[in-house]
Amino acid sequence: MVSKLRIGMVGGGPGAFIGGVHRIALAMDGQFQLVAGAFSSDAAKSRETGGELGLDPKRAYGSWMEMLDGEAKLPADQRIHAISIVTPNNVHFGPAKAALEHGLHVICDKPLAITLEEAEELERLVAKTNLQFCVTHNYTGHPMVREARNLVQSGQLGAIRKVYVEYLQGWLSDKLEDSGQKQAKWRSDPKQSGACGAMGDVGTHAANIVEHITGSRLDSLYATLTSFVTGRLLDDDGMVLFKLKNGASGTLAASQVCVGKENALMVRLFGTKGGLMWEQERPNDLLVYWKDRAPELRRPGNGWIDGEAKTLQRVPAGHPEGYLEAFASLYKSFALAIRGTKDIANAFPTVGDGLSGMKFLRACVKSSKENVWVAV
Amino acid sequence: MVSKLRIGMVGGGPGAFIGGVHRIALAMDGQFQLVAGAFSSDAAKSRETGGELGLDPKRAYGSWMEMLDGEAKLPADQRIHAISIVTPNNVHFGPAKAALEHGLHVICDKPLAITLEEAEELERLVAKTNLQFCVTHNYTGHPMVREARNLVQSGQLGAIRKVYVEYLQGWLSDKLEDSGQKQAKWRSDPKQSGACGAMGDVGTHAANIVEHITGSRLDSLYATLTSFVTGRLLDDDGMVLFKLKNGASGTLAASQVCVGKENALMVRLFGTKGGLMWEQERPNDLLVYWKDRAPELRRPGNGWIDGEAKTLQRVPAGHPEGYLEAFASLYKSFALAIRGTKDIANAFPTVGDGLSGMKFLRACVKSSKENVWVAV
Amino acid sequence: MVSKLRIGMVGGGPGAFIGGVHRIALAMDGQFQLVAGAFSSDAAKSRETGGELGLDPKRAYGSWMEMLDGEAKLPADQRIHAISIVTPNNVHFGPAKAALEHGLHVICDKPLAITLEEAEELERLVAKTNLQFCVTHNYTGHPMVREARNLVQSGQLGAIRKVYVEYLQGWLSDKLEDSGQKQAKWRSDPKQSGACGAMGDVGTHAANIVEHITGSRLDSLYATLTSFVTGRLLDDDGMVLFKLKNGASGTLAASQVCVGKENALMVRLFGTKGGLMWEQERPNDLLVYWKDRAPELRRPGNGWIDGEAKTLQRVPAGHPEGYLEAFASLYKSFALAIRGTKDIANAFPTVGDGLSGMKFLRACVKSSKENVWVAV
Amino acid sequence: MVSKLRIGMVGGGPGAFIGGVHRIALAMDGQFQLVAGAFSSDAAKSRETGGELGLDPKRAYGSWMEMLDGEAKLPADQRIHAISIVTPNNVHFGPAKAALEHGLHVICDKPLAITLEEAEELERLVAKTNLQFCVTHNYTGHPMVREARNLVQSGQLGAIRKVYVEYLQGWLSDKLEDSGQKQAKWRSDPKQSGACGAMGDVGTHAANIVEHITGSRLDSLYATLTSFVTGRLLDDDGMVLFKLKNGASGTLAASQVCVGKENALMVRLFGTKGGLMWEQERPNDLLVYWKDRAPELRRPGNGWIDGEAKTLQRVPAGHPEGYLEAFASLYKSFALAIRGTKDIANAFPTVGDGLSGMKFLRACVKSSKENVWVAV
Repeated sequence: MVSKLRIGMVGGGPGAFIGGVHRIALAMDGQFQLVAGAFSSDAAKSRETGGELGLDPKRAYGSWMEMLDGEAKLPADQRIHAISIVTPNNVHFGPAKAALEHGLHVICDKPLAITLEEAEELERLVAKTNLQFCVTHNYTGHPMVREARNLVQSGQLGAIRKVYVEYLQGWLSDKLEDSGQKQAKWRSDPKQSGACGAMGDVGTHAANIVEHITGSRLDSLYATLTSFVTGRLLDDDGMVLFKLKNGASGTLAASQVCVGKENALMVRLFGTKGGLMWEQERPNDLLVYWKDRAPELRRPGNGWIDGEAKTLQRVPAGHPEGYLEAFASLYKSFALAIRGTKDIANAFPTVGDGLSGMKFLRACVKSSKENVWVAV
Repeated sequence: MVSKLRIGMVGGGPGAFIGGVHRIALAMDGQFQLVAGAFSSDAAKSRETGGELGLDPKRAYGSWMEMLDGEAKLPADQRIHAISIVTPNNVHFGPAKAALEHGLHVICDKPLAITLEEAEELERLVAKTNLQFCVTHNYTGHPMVREARNLVQSGQLGAIRKVYVEYLQGWLSDKLEDSGQKQAKWRSDPKQSGACGAMGDVGTHAANIVEHITGSRLDSLYATLTSFVTGRLLDDDGMVLFKLKNGASGTLAASQVCVGKENALMVRLFGTKGGLMWEQERPNDLLVYWKDRAPELRRPGNGWIDGEAKTLQRVPAGHPEGYLEAFASLYKSFALAIRGTKDIANAFPTVGDGLSGMKFLRACVKSSKENVWVAV
Repeated sequence: MVSKLRIGMVGGGPGAFIGGVHRIALAMDGQFQLVAGAFSSDAAKSRETGGELGLDPKRAYGSWMEMLDGEAKLPADQRIHAISIVTPNNVHFGPAKAALEHGLHVICDKPLAITLEEAEELERLVAKTNLQFCVTHNYTGHPMVREARNLVQSGQLGAIRKVYVEYLQGWLSDKLEDSGQKQAKWRSDPKQSGACGAMGDVGTHAANIVEHITGSRLDSLYATLTSFVTGRLLDDDGMVLFKLKNGASGTLAASQVCVGKENALMVRLFGTKGGLMWEQERPNDLLVYWKDRAPELRRPGNGWIDGEAKTLQRVPAGHPEGYLEAFASLYKSFALAIRGTKDIANAFPTVGDGLSGMKFLRACVKSSKENVWVAV
Repeated sequence: MVSKLRIGMVGGGPGAFIGGVHRIALAMDGQFQLVAGAFSSDAAKSRETGGELGLDPKRAYGSWMEMLDGEAKLPADQRIHAISIVTPNNVHFGPAKAALEHGLHVICDKPLAITLEEAEELERLVAKTNLQFCVTHNYTGHPMVREARNLVQSGQLGAIRKVYVEYLQGWLSDKLEDSGQKQAKWRSDPKQSGACGAMGDVGTHAANIVEHITGSRLDSLYATLTSFVTGRLLDDDGMVLFKLKNGASGTLAASQVCVGKENALMVRLFGTKGGLMWEQERPNDLLVYWKDRAPELRRPGNGWIDGEAKTLQRVPAGHPEGYLEAFASLYKSFALAIRGTKDIANAFPTVGDGLSGMKFLRACVKSSKENVWVAV
């Protein structure tokens, strides 16, 4: 197969944050080359970004529809294999659906869509087309998250009883969206963000990492969503009690009004034989508890780390990898899946994980409105 | 007044844990001398403990009723000023009530009683007799907890929005009560422990520290209590969503099945201007977050620490104090209140705090049974 | 034997810090009762302190000589068994020697004396009288230090190659002694402190903990002593390269001008099979490294902790003990040795350890003056 | 200027570690494109690596001399602007000198050369040619190291008195070089590594970071170099006392036999007003001590971080960057210097820093052999 897979980007123009992250991530392991983009709905801005990135000007498109059409007309050895969707939530479904219909693989930011129905349609389309679809729940790309997953799913920690997960930020503790700050603006706008604010933006990552590590889906929950900042249209805080299908129960907290917290995703879980703790902000440390011996501090790159975690680390023990590397690991796994050299199961978050996130959000909204415990 | 206040102990005989803690704590600051005790309901065992402690054999009583009667007959300059109650929960109310009726000050383990009605009766009796009553929510004795309280109640952190509190242990992850282990046995027996297991044993500490730091009572909550260990009669795990009267909301987790956790009480709260984190297992560190500057790591004994926290530290900065010292600080404050040299308000947890704990437990049980959000 | 051993104190009057620490420590485990004291060279101040402590006024003496004489005249069932010396360094040798000559056991602050010759004389006297002599290198009283010692001396870490030890403080970064602050004053006065400042005050603790854990004495060293603060008469900083008799080499840093450091004693050592780290300010954590598996975080009170460390912990796992408890553990061991119920070897730092500290200081001074590597 | 600078690599063929790091780093910020390489002294292996990287086969050269000659013959708009030298130490000087003579900018691994004379020759050549020369003391690329530098050099911490720096690893605690492991092999071979083992490999990073943060060169030192592993030809451990030209003194420890340590570079320094600590393994945390207020935990991406540190961070606060990103930041700064858009001073470690490292190593060897304090 080709040395590098060709990819086009939707979103990621001037002022965007996550587009730059995706561009570093897709290139890091030499699996992808960015050759096309619809970086902005403003064609001039899209060309400007394309120019900065050294793209062929003809492939800096004015819209994702143009890109899909334009690329389809190129010879097979030039046209893109996949698209990367890095737009606000309301522009996930459209390009994802169309890309699948054009025979392209898709890698897409979370949450997968605005409505559960859209998510279900994407899942059906993926099943039908047999194309690869990665939802960038990027924290699953950390070696120590995979180590955690292996510890749990191999049964070393026993049957899981308790899960505590949280994703706390403080950057929306004031009404930042009024200042025109782009990131705050679309996230607090129901039209662009969907039915949830903080719960969709960071809570879905928290829910996803629990499902990823335990291999069990959320079964039911009780949620309270709140807007602490006056006049904010979406929740900036949520708290959830939940049960997993495997019988464990737990708490989930998602907040963007915890002053001083940066990006504090933390997951802890406890089984009958042991437990663990992982924090996103110090991603190379995994604390593992045992019933009958002292806790261990596991770190990547060491000989005693389990198989899959090893494959996700680029540098020897003691050389910290971070956010960008974990993101890049999803792109690498996605590429290997496209090339057919890696089993897709569990290698990266799929459309099914994205759909699960949408079900989680729907349940949170319903529970919070009706004050009842609901099935997910 | 006398150099040392005379105190008698109820409970704390052979095999007990907390009795020894109280004995170290009451003596540490030279405020109390233990001169009497009903250490066990078995008179021989009570005498045995009295002997080990070098007590006058006549003052090692066979029951707390005997002690109260016996001491009342002694001359005023010999008889006890106060009693310390360190028995299982079902033997709190009886001696506490009788002691107050005998004109003695009381320091009593938590939870205050078995039923809310008992707690209310004690509160009325304290109001009537004007005696001092301390409930040993011992974690409030740490200098950094007082520093936290000062930061919150002086308004430095702004209006509090979020509180996350948890008390996680792992020692009951198996059915330890079947082994005859004394601590496990009474804690899992509804007759001795009351309506709650983990929630009463450790959850009340978590609820109390929130009320202590914020100065606001719990308003309402939604709770789920669970027994993970088959055949256990009381909850070994609970999780709670709650609102405080000050408008803040939060989560509370109490568990004794988190394998590997020792005594992990952690409280975090966030206001409009800042936040903080305190962990019982590293009690000399208080992390303080600010909206517009870097987090601080506050530690006791330093010049920049606020007033009250300073008075609770015996040694200079860098000399860690711990569990016993915090416990001793309650005894010291209790003594100063008896001597009339310190304002009682906020100096130690009172019967009102104990009553609040009972209301919390009642609400947890009701919510968990009926699956509804309930007022506290 | 008697329920409590009777002890008299030398020093610890108004304004002292360490006297209060010793008083809490000697009482904590119920082994000693303070019944006499020469708390100050000012008889009125001594009586004042005695009064505050509730002592028989006749036993609050005006000097240690008076105390030794006065106590000798009391009946055997009243007179003291031991003395506790908590004075500045220049008042260690005198009372220690006289007490031994009066047949009393001695517990004495470090460094043992002002000169090596004095220390040697004390060692000879202890050997001759067969009395117990404890030097309060108090950090050896922590359970996790004993756990470290056991890991090393049982060979679990292999042959020790490297040792890094440091004791960093910041409180003398200005010329505090000019303010009249009592602690700073005597410590920076060669007449009261001896030939060394920081190296004697904190460096000897660092040297001692290395010898305690490894069971090997210092063999030779290269030292640089410095006074950073203008006009200060003794070193406020020192740094040392050293070799142990067991073949390991290492660095030792002692400083009182590290602004912001409180009482940062840290020891790390590495053998052919593993290593460890212990910090005084978080004394309940011991990080243990292994060649072929993940590091462990050992903590006291757990079932998997080795024997001796267990005996030094009063409360269950997760209930942090600290500085006072470690100090108290020395008193307890000292008491058990006096009672003859515990083998003295390694149970507490002896006169031999104090002598070793004096040799260390002599070598530091010589090396620093002559710029040569010297034998200890 | 061109969108991407063209670069050729010397070294980095099959089995190498650091070559891959450089390739990710040079590409991360879109400043460089790797277009040529002499990846191995074995031409076939070089071609193999070139092929894997998608290079034009004609530009995968059999030696660095071939590459320099070959590239020189290409048109100006195709030939490389710079070379990246990622070979063992003995193959730094040759290609670096030749590249400068061919008018190419150079980015080169540390230590700069085998002998001081070589390093001096390179420095002269850089001065003469006015080309950019970056030595990859990569840890200077971390935002929090720049924050530390700014705190010190702006005087906020006062005059620096003490520096403690160390770089501890454990991977050479056995005779790994006998196993054929490539990294261990050349590092322990005097012909490829130079006069020092651990001190050259990791000690020079420690020395460099001190000079980088303080802006002061090493003045003099006393060193002890040791080979703990029997039969090893170079030091696997070294310890140094040193003075800086600014009057500060300190300790430096470099070791590769500290079992369990991964890549533990830690620097701490203390001035008259404050101090700081930074650890490579948790590079996003900078602990800052102050004389009169609580320590701060500074982290990148926050509004209150100083200017230069901000420019080195790609993602918002709370998204950890690591080893690869810091490395990439040197490449980015190097590119900007080549483009002339950034002042070279302090933006990256230069040939002068590399020369300073060689002086440090010479002084260590001399001091260790002669047991004397020597000038650097």
